[in-house]
Amino acid sequence: MVLINNNYLKLKAGYLFPEIARRVKSFSEANPNSELIRLGIGDVTEPLPSSCRLAMKAAIDEMGTREGFHGYGPEQGYLWLREAIAKHDFCARSAEIKPDEIFISDGSKCDSSNILDILGNGNKIAVTDPVYPVYVDSNVMNGSTGNVNEKGQYKGLYYLPIDASNNFDAPIPNEPVDLIYLCFPNNPTGAVANKNKLAEWVNYAKSNKSLILFDSAYESFIQDESIPHSIFEIEGAKECAIEFRSFSKNAGFTGTRCAFCVIPKELRVEMSDGSQIKLWDLWNRRQSTKFNGVSYIVQRGAEAIYTNKGREEVAELVKFYMENAKIIRTNFLNLGFKVYGGLNAPYVWINVPEGMNSWQFFDYLLDKANVVVTPGSGFGLSGEGYFRVSAFNSRENIVSAMNRMSCLSSLK
Amino acid sequence: MVLINNNYLKLKAGYLFPEIARRVKSFSEANPNSELIRLGIGDVTEPLPSSCRLAMKAAIDEMGTREGFHGYGPEQGYLWLREAIAKHDFCARSAEIKPDEIFISDGSKCDSSNILDILGNGNKIAVTDPVYPVYVDSNVMNGSTGNVNEKGQYKGLYYLPIDASNNFDAPIPNEPVDLIYLCFPNNPTGAVANKNKLAEWVNYAKSNKSLILFDSAYESFIQDESIPHSIFEIEGAKECAIEFRSFSKNAGFTGTRCAFCVIPKELRVEMSDGSQIKLWDLWNRRQSTKFNGVSYIVQRGAEAIYTNKGREEVAELVKFYMENAKIIRTNFLNLGFKVYGGLNAPYVWINVPEGMNSWQFFDYLLDKANVVVTPGSGFGLSGEGYFRVSAFNSRENIVSAMNRMSCLSSLK
Repeated sequence: MVLINNNYLKLKAGYLFPEIARRVKSFSEANPNSELIRLGIGDVTEPLPSSCRLAMKAAIDEMGTREGFHGYGPEQGYLWLREAIAKHDFCARSAEIKPDEIFISDGSKCDSSNILDILGNGNKIAVTDPVYPVYVDSNVMNGSTGNVNEKGQYKGLYYLPIDASNNFDAPIPNEPVDLIYLCFPNNPTGAVANKNKLAEWVNYAKSNKSLILFDSAYESFIQDESIPHSIFEIEGAKECAIEFRSFSKNAGFTGTRCAFCVIPKELRVEMSDGSQIKLWDLWNRRQSTKFNGVSYIVQRGAEAIYTNKGREEVAELVKFYMENAKIIRTNFLNLGFKVYGGLNAPYVWINVPEGMNSWQFFDYLLDKANVVVTPGSGFGLSGEGYFRVSAFNSRENIVSAMNRMSCLSSLK
Repeated sequence: MVLINNNYLKLKAGYLFPEIARRVKSFSEANPNSELIRLGIGDVTEPLPSSCRLAMKAAIDEMGTREGFHGYGPEQGYLWLREAIAKHDFCARSAEIKPDEIFISDGSKCDSSNILDILGNGNKIAVTDPVYPVYVDSNVMNGSTGNVNEKGQYKGLYYLPIDASNNFDAPIPNEPVDLIYLCFPNNPTGAVANKNKLAEWVNYAKSNKSLILFDSAYESFIQDESIPHSIFEIEGAKECAIEFRSFSKNAGFTGTRCAFCVIPKELRVEMSDGSQIKLWDLWNRRQSTKFNGVSYIVQRGAEAIYTNKGREEVAELVKFYMENAKIIRTNFLNLGFKVYGGLNAPYVWINVPEGMNSWQFFDYLLDKANVVVTPGSGFGLSGEGYFRVSAFNSRENIVSAMNRMSCLSSLK
């Protein structure tokens, strides 16, 4: 008799985005003529940079010849891509990351959930609240939590509430935790962490022998030059942190699929017998056994992001989406809403009108404006009373969606 | 203090192919002028079919426009690809698989190891010996085994020896096991299973409430029309089996990355309280949470495999590699070796000369002929005394490698 992973039965009814998709589908079926504008899921909309497209086409041509054909690549990714990343994303910012500390993958969602494969059961895990749901759900599936309570929180997780009252600045735990998920620029709130704040986390992690899982998928949207793009810009971070990065949002790779994670060779975990284990060794073994690398064609596309042309194109995309964020911010501020984020991140985080909760406001906006946002409570208990607006859309749709927000003036 | 997954410490020194790579690298450094021919790892060498290349280029052009841009796709894969697969690979062979029972992934290595995510600890697991190492290593990592013994076998695994004495036909266990990994055409031995044999396995699985994990990555190489390509050609299999398929070997996608797994909706597991769980639901949740789908561009390339042109091109590739297999078989038979496989599979499985073990023969051939094969013992205890020769190479290399085998005539 086959035993299943019973931890799956602890999961709440729906992962947030499938639940949104379900409600949108149901609305669309009932209102077939409505013209929906989707500012919910953080999916990019603008064309893939021409430098990436050209590089991928050239790679396809190579694959059409016996001499240029590429079969199985290194499970860790091609060295030329890892070198470009190390140079431009890390060394250029004084973060001394070597190419072989970078593992290319097909997505940060995969990396940030698969990382649990190499970690044991029994770790005490801290997440912010609200939080990107994958951090929580992957831990539930992995058996690192107990059951969910009536508020939607899982037993055994250590929630760090972030809201307007603490300026979306997660409090450092006053007890030891083993794993800490941090995401800056933050999804969903759009908040950022300055150097001092990150140094506090690194110090905490080093004193408590904890591991920071740092998600910087949105680093390219940082406008304030004093804000670190990588945890590895902080001294000592290489001894206590793993970083996840993605090409999804900067270069529009959500449908093309390429990302990477950084595991420094200095990163060691102490065993009960006093010996030390390098997490790099474990992850390398995991990837060699359970993964076969990212498409050669896609890796060539990702490499092109680091050419001069590619970097210009990415800068243009970032500028475009950040202008969208500004339009969203300005519009909701003018309507009298309390507005956060959107200055160094493609997400704007906004208080719902009084008398409504997040899902009620989601449904209201879907119904009245035919605009899809993300209900804050979908990201956690402390997200209740907020909604997230994504700046990833065409200018036309952003402007049009904001015009439709006139339906809200009567509410305030 | 961070706890790691201690099961990783049970793993034997090296995954087979990295160990081969290590020995080859060391040999090449010592003999920089040697011209190695690699018939070890089963990696294809011939150009990617033109229909796939054209389809991927067209997809890249689409991605260059706002209208044709594709962001996040369905985690399960695009319906048009799943429909093409269902139609050509299953319904055309009277296996009634529906498109939504097919999950597109980036590789069978990933699928066949990730599937353990949804299964519980405590299952009794059967593998053939020799076996594709990923089945074993992923179970070790997952905690489904005990320690390795001095023979290299893991405690808790149920090994089904296959060798010349049983005609490489795995014996049906005489006690209940919960999971059974079957791979036909077999990697590494090249053996196939006929309809009666597969029906025996399905009957066994149904009587014992076991789950068959069926790997048919090499189905396109079957020449004998009576041999099933899918476990789902067997009545009742939809209630007890999952199938893994890949485009790696038929269409040369080892470096392009696309595969799929089939989980029928009928496939249910009984819980201790008597209720039933659909494995489809669990896998769907797993994929939605931990995976973001395969590159749109690559999925368009895979779809092209099912066009008339694509099918012709794949047939040509298969014919080419099977001609290689024939050359290898004939050559070793003429040298007086005992030769198996290679008739319905791209792998030829051969007895090493007397007085040598598999790794000794590997080293001998590397040294004397500068040809890389795979030592049978790398696939398991019962693989000792054999080596695997891959038919995946250019005709020139196959012929040249076979000419170099004259060094063996003195051994026999």
